[in-house]
Amino acid sequence: MSDRKINFNAGPTALPLAVLEQVQANLVNFEGNGLSLMEMSHRSKVFGEVIERSKETLSGLYDLPDTHEVMFLQGGASLQFAMVPMNLGDGGTYLDTGTWSTRAIAEARTLGRAVVPWSDAENGFRRVPQQDTLDELELSGPYLHYTTNNTIYGTQYQYIPKASLPLVADMSSDFISRPVDVSGHDLIYAGAQKNAGPSGIVVLLARKEVVHSFKGDDRVPKIMRYATQAAKGSMYNTPNTFGIWVVGLVAQWVADRGGLAAMADENEAKASALYQAIDEHPLLEGHAADDSRSRMNVTFRAQTPAQEAQLLTLASEHGIIGLKGHRSVGGLRASIYNAVPRTSVDALITLLRGFKG
Amino acid sequence: MSDRKINFNAGPTALPLAVLEQVQANLVNFEGNGLSLMEMSHRSKVFGEVIERSKETLSGLYDLPDTHEVMFLQGGASLQFAMVPMNLGDGGTYLDTGTWSTRAIAEARTLGRAVVPWSDAENGFRRVPQQDTLDELELSGPYLHYTTNNTIYGTQYQYIPKASLPLVADMSSDFISRPVDVSGHDLIYAGAQKNAGPSGIVVLLARKEVVHSFKGDDRVPKIMRYATQAAKGSMYNTPNTFGIWVVGLVAQWVADRGGLAAMADENEAKASALYQAIDEHPLLEGHAADDSRSRMNVTFRAQTPAQEAQLLTLASEHGIIGLKGHRSVGGLRASIYNAVPRTSVDALITLLRGFKG
Repeated sequence: MSDRKINFNAGPTALPLAVLEQVQANLVNFEGNGLSLMEMSHRSKVFGEVIERSKETLSGLYDLPDTHEVMFLQGGASLQFAMVPMNLGDGGTYLDTGTWSTRAIAEARTLGRAVVPWSDAENGFRRVPQQDTLDELELSGPYLHYTTNNTIYGTQYQYIPKASLPLVADMSSDFISRPVDVSGHDLIYAGAQKNAGPSGIVVLLARKEVVHSFKGDDRVPKIMRYATQAAKGSMYNTPNTFGIWVVGLVAQWVADRGGLAAMADENEAKASALYQAIDEHPLLEGHAADDSRSRMNVTFRAQTPAQEAQLLTLASEHGIIGLKGHRSVGGLRASIYNAVPRTSVDALITLLRGFKG
Repeated sequence: MSDRKINFNAGPTALPLAVLEQVQANLVNFEGNGLSLMEMSHRSKVFGEVIERSKETLSGLYDLPDTHEVMFLQGGASLQFAMVPMNLGDGGTYLDTGTWSTRAIAEARTLGRAVVPWSDAENGFRRVPQQDTLDELELSGPYLHYTTNNTIYGTQYQYIPKASLPLVADMSSDFISRPVDVSGHDLIYAGAQKNAGPSGIVVLLARKEVVHSFKGDDRVPKIMRYATQAAKGSMYNTPNTFGIWVVGLVAQWVADRGGLAAMADENEAKASALYQAIDEHPLLEGHAADDSRSRMNVTFRAQTPAQEAQLLTLASEHGIIGLKGHRSVGGLRASIYNAVPRTSVDALITLLRGFKG
């Protein structure tokens, strides 16, 4: 497909071409069943196998302990911002590393209290806290919430926090991009539309004892309780069946490439090469602090907005899209998720090296 | 596609073959843009046109008055069961016509009060109330909630209630199946997975003055307020982009067939023929009362469960699927939504006529 764009969108964004082709081939007649998956009851045997396969593939990728299970919900990470405090309790501790954690905090505060002992707002969200910083913070409440990767600012935790509280992670933008020890987490949630599939579906890796019993307020709607969906294997009401299928295919594509460790190696190599090209370039500068640089979203700036516009035009002429920084921060951003091949990153590096302003 | 099943699933269920083929053709390379729609930012120009087109097509079908607008949310009708009282206020009046209205009532009662002046529970949910019954009821609170079509029991309102309260309608299972005067409704909501598209998306026809200003409790999460999404054209957070596209295509397919009036004629003809075959059959009996028979879900029973099992086997041998009644009521059910062609209904009628028990 020589007409295929080189896609650095932040999300929704590039999916593996092999997965798209598989979806296309099975779109009208799903695996020879004589109807589309979109036309099947979610209670059918065939869809039952699809959702189980998707759960098993994700469980396999994360080597999920018996204490945890996979769930598929709707409403995006934004609905989780409300469901987390509604279900896990009021007064959680949040680390503020940019737009999405800021929104999670605001939503928790709509419902009750959120404790925010650390924020990098004043510094333009250039970094995430390191473990030694965490060690000095006062943590309180039922959980510690962190955003593993900050899409907009291009920062990422390169470690799993050690804390006296159970962890809750918004992993929307680096889900299935690298191995993660799930065991310290009560909940990991991820909107699928970055690394894992189409929009309209959020994946949860959840501690069973947390999601199978509801301990919140009696007036929390039943549909907002994890226990409601956990009791029904994510099918209390009709789930996003198409999304569950595609997420499973993407997860299988990762498994076929060697799993999360292999994926992390690929992502690390892509990111290193791109950061090096930026660091070496006389007109470009990275946004994130060295210890917090994201392997998923590489944020950078030119010396002037005019140069940035020039670079975007040049990129567009080469079939390269999605390089504009988020409207809230400006600058440039290359999102290099799992499905962005090394060849795309190399094409961008070549473009940057040739850019003289 | 001679291998295509004759699909009477209740939902998710049959989509127009022409739409599925259009989705398939554009799955990898959307309208020549060099990437899949699933890979596009929801903020992109191309997706902006897609969502506008979907809104306009639906607006056109319903001849939507200027007072109303189209919204696309996630979470299914089940999330609306909570959002309606959270946004429109406590103490609404509900008409109980079966499983889904019962669930809507239960959710409203989790949050506060629901007034239920009429229920057909004792009678096995064989009918919906007629206007003269409504005229005698005491209605109170901010809205009157009704379920236009009851998928499980096969009943349907054949009129739009006249009431002293604004109407709120769960139209999940007969959306875009017939013309509806939207003007008396504060809100119409419909999970798309029956007549309108894949699961994972709910369509709203909403009174602007109701959804653009939030008058509920301060502690309602921002993501659960219609005003949050209305202010952003349904893109406060990433919507189900694929679902919005497909719903638009299905709506366009209806428009191309002559719109809602033409669709209603087709649906009426299909339903009449099927009810007639059931009424004439010595071993079969319809479930719903005459004045409440659904044009979407035709529910019926044989004289014994053994005969029903026999009929299901026979159907399966003829490539006919989805005839089993909902597990909560048993019996048989043929869901004959927009996308179920007359030829499928005729095939079922032939099967029934040949069935001697």
